Amino acid sequence: MEEQVEVVSKAFVEHYYSLFDNDRSSLSSLYHPTSMLTFEGQKIVGVDEISAKLRDLPFDKCQHHISTVDSQPSSSAGIVVFVSGSLQLPEEEHHLRFSQMFHLVPSPAGSFFVQNDIFRLNYG
Amino acid sequence: MEEQVEVVSKAFVEHYYSLFDNDRSSLSSLYHPTSMLTFEGQKIVGVDEISAKLRDLPFDKCQHHISTVDSQPSSSAGIVVFVSGSLQLPEEEHHLRFSQMFHLVPSPAGSFFVQNDIFRLNYG
Repeated sequence: MEEQVEVVSKAFVEHYYSLFDNDRSSLSSLYHPTSMLTFEGQKIVGVDEISAKLRDLPFDKCQHHISTVDSQPSSSAGIVVFVSGSLQLPEEEHHLRFSQMFHLVPSPAGSFFVQNDIFRLNYG
Repeated sequence: MEEQVEVVSKAFVEHYYSLFDNDRSSLSSLYHPTSMLTFEGQKIVGVDEISAKLRDLPFDKCQHHISTVDSQPSSSAGIVVFVSGSLQLPEEEHHLRFSQMFHLVPSPAGSFFVQNDIFRLNYG
């Protein structure tokens, strides 16, 4: 169980940030109608609204560098994932440090979707 | 519901860090035998082991300053809470920035306990 949690969360993190950096509109496949995103304090509910928020971020390309991935099994067969890393935006010299947590929940199809997503930039 | 989640998570955060800073041994009241803590990558399971870890941290007094608290209802009537802030240790000039997430789960007694807890210092 413990090992499966690690494997799923690492694969999820790799997939999520790869889509974010290379094919952001495909992130919608990871959310459901009940999903929630809190982005720098702004609350957004539902796959459509979350997809619109991510699509309309004020930059086209970015690159995430992952520093740490921690995960635990949650109740109800889910997984909580905590990520820290940095975000490189085009034409910005400095990386922005961020932390993000996900609560992954099993979907009827046998995979996982993002039920909870909270993102914060870390100000130094 | 949304409002209750905010109220519970803010009260929890205030209570948790107040105990941490003033009466650290009482933090054990917030964990159960199934609780999990990942502290700077180290995995600890169960209220006894978590209490021992927190008790044996290499400083007696500290002070947390909270910058942001984000919360969402999770599946199964729980609450996910994401905290950012800084930690002042005795005889340290600088604050240490940290991020921490909690998954609070309803207890049979009608309150909440910490099922998942992940803590990371933010390195700049």
